[in-house]
Amino acid sequence: MINVAIIGVGTVGQSVAKILKENKTLISARAGEEINVVKGVVKDLSKKRDISIPLTTNIDEVLNDDSIDIIVELMGGIDEPYRVIKAALTNKKAVVTANKALLAYHRYDLQEIAKNIPIGYEASVAGGIPIINALKVGLSANQILSIKGIMNGTCNYMLTKMMNENVSFNDILKEAQELGYAEADPTFDVGGFDAAHKLLILASIAYGIDAKPEDILIEGIEDINEHDMDFAKEFGYCIKLLAIAKKSKNNIELRVHPVLIKESQMIAKIDGVMNGISVIGDFVGESLYYGAGAGGDATASAVVSDIVEIVRAGQSSPMLGFKKPHQSQILKLLPVDEIESKYYLRMKVVDKPGVLANIASILAAWDISIETILQREAKEKNKAMLLFSIHTCKERQIKSAIKDIEAQETLNSKISMIRIED
Amino acid sequence: MINVAIIGVGTVGQSVAKILKENKTLISARAGEEINVVKGVVKDLSKKRDISIPLTTNIDEVLNDDSIDIIVELMGGIDEPYRVIKAALTNKKAVVTANKALLAYHRYDLQEIAKNIPIGYEASVAGGIPIINALKVGLSANQILSIKGIMNGTCNYMLTKMMNENVSFNDILKEAQELGYAEADPTFDVGGFDAAHKLLILASIAYGIDAKPEDILIEGIEDINEHDMDFAKEFGYCIKLLAIAKKSKNNIELRVHPVLIKESQMIAKIDGVMNGISVIGDFVGESLYYGAGAGGDATASAVVSDIVEIVRAGQSSPMLGFKKPHQSQILKLLPVDEIESKYYLRMKVVDKPGVLANIASILAAWDISIETILQREAKEKNKAMLLFSIHTCKERQIKSAIKDIEAQETLNSKISMIRIED
Repeated sequence: MINVAIIGVGTVGQSVAKILKENKTLISARAGEEINVVKGVVKDLSKKRDISIPLTTNIDEVLNDDSIDIIVELMGGIDEPYRVIKAALTNKKAVVTANKALLAYHRYDLQEIAKNIPIGYEASVAGGIPIINALKVGLSANQILSIKGIMNGTCNYMLTKMMNENVSFNDILKEAQELGYAEADPTFDVGGFDAAHKLLILASIAYGIDAKPEDILIEGIEDINEHDMDFAKEFGYCIKLLAIAKKSKNNIELRVHPVLIKESQMIAKIDGVMNGISVIGDFVGESLYYGAGAGGDATASAVVSDIVEIVRAGQSSPMLGFKKPHQSQILKLLPVDEIESKYYLRMKVVDKPGVLANIASILAAWDISIETILQREAKEKNKAMLLFSIHTCKERQIKSAIKDIEAQETLNSKISMIRIED
Repeated sequence: MINVAIIGVGTVGQSVAKILKENKTLISARAGEEINVVKGVVKDLSKKRDISIPLTTNIDEVLNDDSIDIIVELMGGIDEPYRVIKAALTNKKAVVTANKALLAYHRYDLQEIAKNIPIGYEASVAGGIPIINALKVGLSANQILSIKGIMNGTCNYMLTKMMNENVSFNDILKEAQELGYAEADPTFDVGGFDAAHKLLILASIAYGIDAKPEDILIEGIEDINEHDMDFAKEFGYCIKLLAIAKKSKNNIELRVHPVLIKESQMIAKIDGVMNGISVIGDFVGESLYYGAGAGGDATASAVVSDIVEIVRAGQSSPMLGFKKPHQSQILKLLPVDEIESKYYLRMKVVDKPGVLANIASILAAWDISIETILQREAKEKNKAMLLFSIHTCKERQIKSAIKDIEAQETLNSKISMIRIED
């Protein structure tokens, strides 16, 4: 009999207890042992919860309880769960966590502390998709050439709606908040930070690379509007927030931003709140993983799968998949300025002769070559909306060009830029 | 240092050696040990191969070699690899196999013999998709409500072409053979047997159920023609060969056959030679796995991932995922006659009054209710093509009705039937 304590009994925690109860017979058959949730740790005992496990507010009560084998950490935050998990590992308890923010900062510290004590974290990235395990085990023969993930359901729901129903960012954000798909403060989701945390976790398994959120390019979907959607439709693209990891030679690019991506690609077919992750390996080619990214039950399913695997098989492989940390000595994070991409630019200009020539000459001065131009009427009189797509260049070039163009007085708004992933 | 021997050095075997060589540094870092292919066993030494490992024709030479840790079985066939794997396990060697036919018949025997010696078989189902591991580990918290897989690239290539380019089954089969997507004798692929073998393997992990190919419903795509494709397009369907496992109460349905499936479903978007598997779990909801199903490199990627996992983590969990075999005592294979589905029927009839009424009355006599009827001109004079879709009924009913209708002299050909998956 295996005893589990859950620290943080919110939606996911309650669902973990529910799954272990409702699928008890099945899970016991798979795990080989009966698994019981014996204690929950909460901040506020008076809050109503639909569970029958004994609750306490005292974390140390479970950390120091020798009868507890596995700690499930669902507290949220970074510092406090880090302290709690370290204490659990020190007490030789296996740990399962869904905490992506914690792992974005402390995954290597935890791997170091854990040594051979199992830490499961399948739930930290795209809960309903066993992508951690796919990367760690299923694709381990491969150099991972790229990972492209739709890993934030809030953004994907909003972008899908904006594409299909011609609604504005603000209107759809309001709707997403009403439906519970977006938080009251949506910055963490729509700003790309949530996806970035997940990307860093996957990059460690793929590349053994230790990077923190502040090291990588993170942009959100806040500036996307109906002109961008029109341009996308016109040229057979859709717009997605992608978390991207790419390997070229010994450089690793890590970045999260909206992209224009061809409708025909599999990853472009993932709509609504669903998540999807495309991985290209040097021998296996492309594989893609699709499922629910969030939600109590999907996330809890991943937590319980980690518990089952810990009980059934233990874990003699290290948390992040590498037995020897050679990779980090070979592979380097590519500086943001050196990243190459194709780009789309949108700008509102004064509609008079010479403006386009002026912009084109600035782009040329930065050695940037235009692929397509689309001119649209702007709502205001004597204004035009210019939409460009730009051949591959470096971030450094496009950002310098944007700065120079924005300094022109014929420009009536900031330039919006979206990267194009082909 | 881990020594591997490959028995059967064809396309996949050569690719296994190539991956272990080309990705040696990366794989050593992941596995924690250097992995070397030290011997290959072949039938014919004179055949040209692009590898540098020593070859032998004597299987016993590797089975009895104490320095060999892992045997990779890529021989093909059933009886001989079964004997070889048993011998390897008896000699305490871990085994990796891509042999789905062997596993379709002997997976439980091998699990019994292996006990705690690892057997990897990720390559046996959809090589480029780590679906074995996803079901065994990632989804283990769930009752698996259904598995629907496109697991034969040959059939999917042919059906995609037939749908998009209006070519006949025979023409596209010829093309697929020329491209190397189909064998000279295509029965194993187009008849559904290959997909059935894979389905049985997945069903064991999902349900702990022991079934053999002859226990389940297997139909191929040989009878599908342009009328069926037209009907599909008219009603927003596409036609796929699906391998289906479904749980309802304590019954498990296992079946492989062509289906009409709504274009909007994710699984319907998987085209060409690619494979895709949709799994629905009671808590996790739908997840879908997409990738290459065959090809030397994709299959070899799965073989090598098994080797890495055996070296890195060992395998204390049983081969098919269940520590206790309780499931097979609870779940029963639903007899084919009891399977329920919606159906599509195509029949060529004499075009005269009363024919449709006659057919409709036979269907009614079997308590079968018609959903839609489409009448088309047949190529021959005085003949009509009737296309029906039928509301949910049992196999028993539809097959009896088909038999009765086929006994009518107004019918000019056998009835073609395709199941509809909604």
